[in-house]
Amino acid sequence: MAEETEISQIGEFGLINRLTENLPIYNKSTIKGVGDDAAVIDPGSGMRTLVTTDMLLEGVHFDLTYVPLKHLGYKAAVVNFSDIYAMNGTPRQITVSLGLSTRFTVEHMQELYSGIRLACEIYGVDLVGGDTCASRSGLVISITCIGEAGASDVVLRNTAKDTDLICVSGDLGAAYMGLQLLEREKIAGAGNKDFQPDFAGKEYIVERQLKPEARRDIIQILKNESIKPTSMIDVSDGLSSELMHLCKESGTGCRIYEDRIPIDYQTALMAEELNMNLVTAALNGGEDYELLFTVPLVEHDKVSAIEGIRVIGHMTKPELGLALISRDGNELPLKAQGWNAFQ
Amino acid sequence: MAEETEISQIGEFGLINRLTENLPIYNKSTIKGVGDDAAVIDPGSGMRTLVTTDMLLEGVHFDLTYVPLKHLGYKAAVVNFSDIYAMNGTPRQITVSLGLSTRFTVEHMQELYSGIRLACEIYGVDLVGGDTCASRSGLVISITCIGEAGASDVVLRNTAKDTDLICVSGDLGAAYMGLQLLEREKIAGAGNKDFQPDFAGKEYIVERQLKPEARRDIIQILKNESIKPTSMIDVSDGLSSELMHLCKESGTGCRIYEDRIPIDYQTALMAEELNMNLVTAALNGGEDYELLFTVPLVEHDKVSAIEGIRVIGHMTKPELGLALISRDGNELPLKAQGWNAFQ
Repeated sequence: MAEETEISQIGEFGLINRLTENLPIYNKSTIKGVGDDAAVIDPGSGMRTLVTTDMLLEGVHFDLTYVPLKHLGYKAAVVNFSDIYAMNGTPRQITVSLGLSTRFTVEHMQELYSGIRLACEIYGVDLVGGDTCASRSGLVISITCIGEAGASDVVLRNTAKDTDLICVSGDLGAAYMGLQLLEREKIAGAGNKDFQPDFAGKEYIVERQLKPEARRDIIQILKNESIKPTSMIDVSDGLSSELMHLCKESGTGCRIYEDRIPIDYQTALMAEELNMNLVTAALNGGEDYELLFTVPLVEHDKVSAIEGIRVIGHMTKPELGLALISRDGNELPLKAQGWNAFQ
Repeated sequence: MAEETEISQIGEFGLINRLTENLPIYNKSTIKGVGDDAAVIDPGSGMRTLVTTDMLLEGVHFDLTYVPLKHLGYKAAVVNFSDIYAMNGTPRQITVSLGLSTRFTVEHMQELYSGIRLACEIYGVDLVGGDTCASRSGLVISITCIGEAGASDVVLRNTAKDTDLICVSGDLGAAYMGLQLLEREKIAGAGNKDFQPDFAGKEYIVERQLKPEARRDIIQILKNESIKPTSMIDVSDGLSSELMHLCKESGTGCRIYEDRIPIDYQTALMAEELNMNLVTAALNGGEDYELLFTVPLVEHDKVSAIEGIRVIGHMTKPELGLALISRDGNELPLKAQGWNAFQ
């Protein structure tokens, strides 16, 4: 080949853009292809079928020194459910493909599956298929989730208006700080069989990392309140990165306010202890699996009154760019560091 | 844990059985879960949504020393389409997840995608999503295919009757002998940059290995002839293994006739050249991606007249077991060596 481009030069999103450029569509049942939390298919019933998929690789996405297999199975399933909720849909079925190296036993896989089964039970999802094969290199998990939504209920990323309010559920940065803590304790305990990691007072951030939940409850609350988001995405790569997706797809700018970003006190304590920038963790940490969405300005009072949802800013005309207003009133350009595992 | 069982002790199918034992079903839209070529979902439209998934790992399923990336992409897509055809359905959408180590460049991935795109174009399938991430260990490809079939058109594995005829499309063993040839030439050319592999007169078996096709044409012919198979599966692990699935699921035995098994002359020549047993290759080679199916006895004349379909035997009462009748009239028990990559 004439030229060789390292993937790290253009990053994950750059690569995806390059690979999926000018993708033709052959079937009229394909409503929305690449570029949202899930693909949208019209099965001809007035409902929409949603499809999302996630791959997790040992050594890249998880470290089995501190991630129990049952938790890993649970998380691998839940992060897919989260993508379906982010379309305002309901997850219904999953397929699970596993690549296993010889160091894994049948009992290990039963542990992993017990986590997947538990997630399926809690979220009412059916495990309907998959593929199991040998791997030369650790554990590979690829899960695909099929969901369902009413045709007029589906919420995409590209339909926010420039006057909409920006809302986020729960709190941010906790999973990332949980990961930092787990990594610290791993190093502290290396080579010491009797080492007991100290998670006292940090249980919440550890749980956010090891056993995240998908925000089905938020989808239900919004439905009960008759609020339909104008755009939505789940926070897997970090608030900044997801906000950039919404703005880019919707053709808007945004202003969010530092003092509005919801952060748990354990997250703040951990950041202080590790001397890390708390706002950076909340903006770019990722793996929160909270829902980031926009609602029309007219919903301000209704949405502000909902516990567990915070209005953090608003969309703007695109020419105003993406801005973070700091506590001292300065306007800073939002940068999506996100995750770039290729670097 | 009290006991540890090596996965090789129970094999891939044993592991799948163990993991999917007593799987609960929470959604009435789930018509058929684990245990067929694809899952069957009722989207409420009178049609059925089909879902199948396949994972391919470098060093286990493919060897990039002799598999061009474009061919690999094509094959990775087509083997999924094959599973949808084996349900008597039409593939409509795929998602593609990739794990990539740093030795792969953007151009490599464009090569791989050009094969996936070509397969999508030829089979009329839309690429609608996926996931791309870094890998520590070579290339991982996980593809999920969504298909469609009329509710009454879906053909499962468990609905054969004990008097049905057993039919297979195309010919068997060619992909396996193609693999043997590619492996031989790889060894012959090791360390020699100028080595040119010799595939003269063996083009067919090499193509069957590197660029298999899914038998959409057979599905169409059967439809045109108004023949609905009573059970069907695609031949990915080998005729013996697939036949055992049909018999086990349908609660039947079977008798197939050695002299009826369709084998191409290139396959036969290659087996002779390599001093390998031809029937073993045809029975257990795998990766043929032909369709193995049963039809009612009454369809004998109609199905026998179709070019590209061979009647190779018939189902029996279960107590008669699974038998291969050799050319000299001996009855041999069918053994599924299939693929057990865990051994």
